[in-house]
Amino acid sequence: MTPFLSAETFLLPTETARELYHTIAARLPIADWHCHLPVSEIAEDAPCGNIAQLWLAHDHYKWRAMRCLGVPESHITGVAADWDKFAVWAACIPQLIGSPLYHWTHLELRRFFGINEPLNPDTARNIYARANEQLANMTVRDLLRISNVELLCTTDDPASSLIWHEKLRDEYAAGSFGIRVLPAFRADNLLYGGREYLDEMSAVSGIDAHSEQGLADALSARADAFSALGCRAADFSAPNVNADNMEQIRRLTKICADRNWVLETHLGVMRNVNPRMLAEIGKDAGGDTIKPAHSITQGLFRLFEDFAARGQLPKTILFSLNPADNAVITALCGCFGDKLRQGSAWWFNDSLPGMRAQLSNYAAALPLATFPGFVTDSRSFLSFPRHEYFRRLFCGMLGDWVERGEYPRDWDALERLVRGVCHDGAMEFFGF
Amino acid sequence: MTPFLSAETFLLPTETARELYHTIAARLPIADWHCHLPVSEIAEDAPCGNIAQLWLAHDHYKWRAMRCLGVPESHITGVAADWDKFAVWAACIPQLIGSPLYHWTHLELRRFFGINEPLNPDTARNIYARANEQLANMTVRDLLRISNVELLCTTDDPASSLIWHEKLRDEYAAGSFGIRVLPAFRADNLLYGGREYLDEMSAVSGIDAHSEQGLADALSARADAFSALGCRAADFSAPNVNADNMEQIRRLTKICADRNWVLETHLGVMRNVNPRMLAEIGKDAGGDTIKPAHSITQGLFRLFEDFAARGQLPKTILFSLNPADNAVITALCGCFGDKLRQGSAWWFNDSLPGMRAQLSNYAAALPLATFPGFVTDSRSFLSFPRHEYFRRLFCGMLGDWVERGEYPRDWDALERLVRGVCHDGAMEFFGF
Amino acid sequence: MTPFLSAETFLLPTETARELYHTIAARLPIADWHCHLPVSEIAEDAPCGNIAQLWLAHDHYKWRAMRCLGVPESHITGVAADWDKFAVWAACIPQLIGSPLYHWTHLELRRFFGINEPLNPDTARNIYARANEQLANMTVRDLLRISNVELLCTTDDPASSLIWHEKLRDEYAAGSFGIRVLPAFRADNLLYGGREYLDEMSAVSGIDAHSEQGLADALSARADAFSALGCRAADFSAPNVNADNMEQIRRLTKICADRNWVLETHLGVMRNVNPRMLAEIGKDAGGDTIKPAHSITQGLFRLFEDFAARGQLPKTILFSLNPADNAVITALCGCFGDKLRQGSAWWFNDSLPGMRAQLSNYAAALPLATFPGFVTDSRSFLSFPRHEYFRRLFCGMLGDWVERGEYPRDWDALERLVRGVCHDGAMEFFGF
Repeated sequence: MTPFLSAETFLLPTETARELYHTIAARLPIADWHCHLPVSEIAEDAPCGNIAQLWLAHDHYKWRAMRCLGVPESHITGVAADWDKFAVWAACIPQLIGSPLYHWTHLELRRFFGINEPLNPDTARNIYARANEQLANMTVRDLLRISNVELLCTTDDPASSLIWHEKLRDEYAAGSFGIRVLPAFRADNLLYGGREYLDEMSAVSGIDAHSEQGLADALSARADAFSALGCRAADFSAPNVNADNMEQIRRLTKICADRNWVLETHLGVMRNVNPRMLAEIGKDAGGDTIKPAHSITQGLFRLFEDFAARGQLPKTILFSLNPADNAVITALCGCFGDKLRQGSAWWFNDSLPGMRAQLSNYAAALPLATFPGFVTDSRSFLSFPRHEYFRRLFCGMLGDWVERGEYPRDWDALERLVRGVCHDGAMEFFGF
Repeated sequence: MTPFLSAETFLLPTETARELYHTIAARLPIADWHCHLPVSEIAEDAPCGNIAQLWLAHDHYKWRAMRCLGVPESHITGVAADWDKFAVWAACIPQLIGSPLYHWTHLELRRFFGINEPLNPDTARNIYARANEQLANMTVRDLLRISNVELLCTTDDPASSLIWHEKLRDEYAAGSFGIRVLPAFRADNLLYGGREYLDEMSAVSGIDAHSEQGLADALSARADAFSALGCRAADFSAPNVNADNMEQIRRLTKICADRNWVLETHLGVMRNVNPRMLAEIGKDAGGDTIKPAHSITQGLFRLFEDFAARGQLPKTILFSLNPADNAVITALCGCFGDKLRQGSAWWFNDSLPGMRAQLSNYAAALPLATFPGFVTDSRSFLSFPRHEYFRRLFCGMLGDWVERGEYPRDWDALERLVRGVCHDGAMEFFGF
Repeated sequence: MTPFLSAETFLLPTETARELYHTIAARLPIADWHCHLPVSEIAEDAPCGNIAQLWLAHDHYKWRAMRCLGVPESHITGVAADWDKFAVWAACIPQLIGSPLYHWTHLELRRFFGINEPLNPDTARNIYARANEQLANMTVRDLLRISNVELLCTTDDPASSLIWHEKLRDEYAAGSFGIRVLPAFRADNLLYGGREYLDEMSAVSGIDAHSEQGLADALSARADAFSALGCRAADFSAPNVNADNMEQIRRLTKICADRNWVLETHLGVMRNVNPRMLAEIGKDAGGDTIKPAHSITQGLFRLFEDFAARGQLPKTILFSLNPADNAVITALCGCFGDKLRQGSAWWFNDSLPGMRAQLSNYAAALPLATFPGFVTDSRSFLSFPRHEYFRRLFCGMLGDWVERGEYPRDWDALERLVRGVCHDGAMEFFGF
């Protein structure tokens, strides 16, 4: 029996897998090219807060699990004290067998705080004290350094002023902070925002954005400002691509094509399906879900056809939330050569079975060497061990293929695959 | 090599799995909270009939397999003698490798009759004789007792008189029959019935059900009558929730919300797609199939939104027939906290791969501890070993997680999971 | 660790699997009942050309992989020299871990040329020379004989003259060529062709096909001509069955019903979604993809209902491209007894995970003994080792079931399953 979460063997059942992980993958820095970390906190090097705040203040994955287990809202998003929230979370943990939340929690305890015991009601108080003692002297940049982060892209509205990114660029140039933090052009408000948003765009760009041409000019100016700070990607989220949003998405696609940026889609999402939760807690509270598959890809096909027909298709990474679409997405990618990639299993799907299913479909349908690697897509500074989780699983799969005789033990080729998928491929695809 | 269907090891590849199953799961009684057993036969303690009748008179799973293998209808639903039908079924059996029918058949032979040989044309006559010799002295209640059934919910039309349930309640109260048999409110005729059904409702309720208000009052009266006999659940089956049936489904949802009943949906079903089979054999003959996914969940989202907005969402268990929807269903459940649950893999999906895929997706998306457990959903008194089948598979999965180092060997937590998922969780969720 | 692609153990992890494969499956001849080999080349016994031409001149699976890896079109479908194309392909190969392309390539090198080294940039020149040296003296019939092909069905337009099939029939009758090569009635032009196609039909049939009745008569005459040459199947490909194509598909279905032919559907395909690729390279260039699931099966249900209602449903094999439909397809098949079968995992899905998922769903939903076996569906004379690939995987699955105690080691039954699924079942289903 393998010990629980053993550094040596976790997700690494074969000798080949262990060697690939420990000699190659584990040593690579992290390029987290899509996350939701608050750039202001990095720029100000904010203190971390305690472990209850770090884990529970913003994480709707944990909130959903707690609600399913009958925890009252007071102890989830409500007014209960930090320790009380932490204690109920600790009581939920043993019930989360098979969930990535279970593994993330314990990887984070080990990697950031050296705490090896399983979290449960018996260990909760001791773990809370030990984690908080260490956190008292830590800032968010410490968490990034411990995680060996090399580069990260935050998620920024086109109308944002980018002052924090300017500060971070200057620090990086001066050598006083060694991690590249780049903006990414997240255009959801372009799709959904109203008049108020056009006011904001006008103010930040200095161009009246209330006419068609004005909006185009303002967006273009903002995109140039993003580029000047190292931006390499734009991004949007929508249930699907359809008649209502096609024009704005085309505009965004063109912005990418013109600047050789990567376009990221986050499709298949239905937001706020629990209206009471929306009313009482707000957005991003755990009330979002997977859109059934049928129409997700229709507009998408049309979009890519249009741009490909004119030779203007930008590099694109497709995230789609419904795992029943995996085969549809990889088959579509294969139609556009080296322009399209599927993003790694995402949100409801970055579990062991979800990532395994996505990777083995990807490998069967597209060259695995083109896989753009893992991103946390997270709001938490503690999420970086998810890269370790992915890398272990990935090396585990490679090891299985080799040891089952389905791929030769060609170490150079394997090393290139590990480096490429865990790090180098995304650096090159984005042009970081 | 593991022996065939070994009591010690079947579906239990690890030591941890074997210990969990044999010391905990195997000893739990069965609470079969959704089945189609005929309440009249339980109330009258009917004789079992012979093994051909028990296995082949009503089981459209077996009928489909036999038709696929070219068996003439005379030997399926037709006039052939019992032995002749049994003999052709025995000849089909070895061709059913990989099917749950193969395992169910042999578990039933072992658990009810102590017959360990594989069924095939060579063993058929001997097995037929030995099973029938034992069945000659057995009643349906013997089959329930052998299966260690503690409680079961039959499936009853709102217009049914419930006289058999009254008899069973009295016997249970008097201690003369130790198994609780409760009605469940199956409302398909409410969705699909016409004027004739309103006549029936009027007669049984003593309220004229032909007006809107009259129907509402009659239904309410029937629901109260069901409640008085211990009913804890209502249920319907439909291809999807849409404009045509939304009003009636809302009515049913409200009945549940008002009584703290559990609502069960059985979605994604297309019935009677083979018109000749419908004409010649009738309903439930094996001509039902899976509805493609696209629109199943649209009305469902709207339904839950409406009730959740008013804080009236009843506890609900979602069964959906298309396994491509598994991720959509669990993501939706997560939006409504402890109110919604996905039901176990069902009908075309309660196979080993179907149940494994559903459980591992569930565990990844929702706390596995909330899984409402297995139900036979069966018309046969011999189906209870399917609970054993599920429990073995479930303990097998837990054992794998522990022995791969993905969960600690915390025996208390594991025992709670086994007891919860195999029995206690449903008892509590329904409030039995 | 199992050696790479070991003849003894590849995909055969258990002793039972190895015995089933080596003593039974490996010795069976190949009946490839659906492929796209050019009948003219077989009739003329054309020389093979070199390995670059054989592998790269027509194979859009390889083209897609190369494009994804950034190979310029000049070295895919363009004017680059044969060796240069081969060299870039060799450089792509190590990046295709987990892809069936990786395994097919190496099985072909071993089975046709006795070359055991992995293909990569270091081995490319030597492998190119050794394969071409052998190919210099080989014809396409040699490739068929090495592959132990017994029978194959090409894919022929109803308007084709069939002269090559007449030649092959005569040679087979005279004993000068021992492989049966039969036509199959591929009706895509019936669905999509315009006036020009009616001209062709008129010319080849000698019946004016420009009226409704004339087209029906001409088609019937062509079908009879196909039958006279041993044709046993018709076939079409469409995104789905809908109002636009229903009339022509009905016509085709009736042609099958009248002649006891097998109807093959190839649904769920979207063709030419990359318009630039279509403009510059043409059809079948790698720009086809999977249609999202939602409406694929709707018209299909109606079609089968209509024919089944009149007792005229022909035997039918359903290929559907979206693997999310697997459960929908097998459930539908089960509604029509021994008439409908699902075809093996196809195109984007004939990978190890794709075939395993499809087979285990099939076994769970329909008697595995009815599985119609593998077909290459290929344009390449080198594709027959894909049958070996399937057979190994299939025996591997059977071995797992036996050695895990899920099926008894009943050798007669296992041998019937292997023979049936790998060869005999299709011979019987089609009536070859």
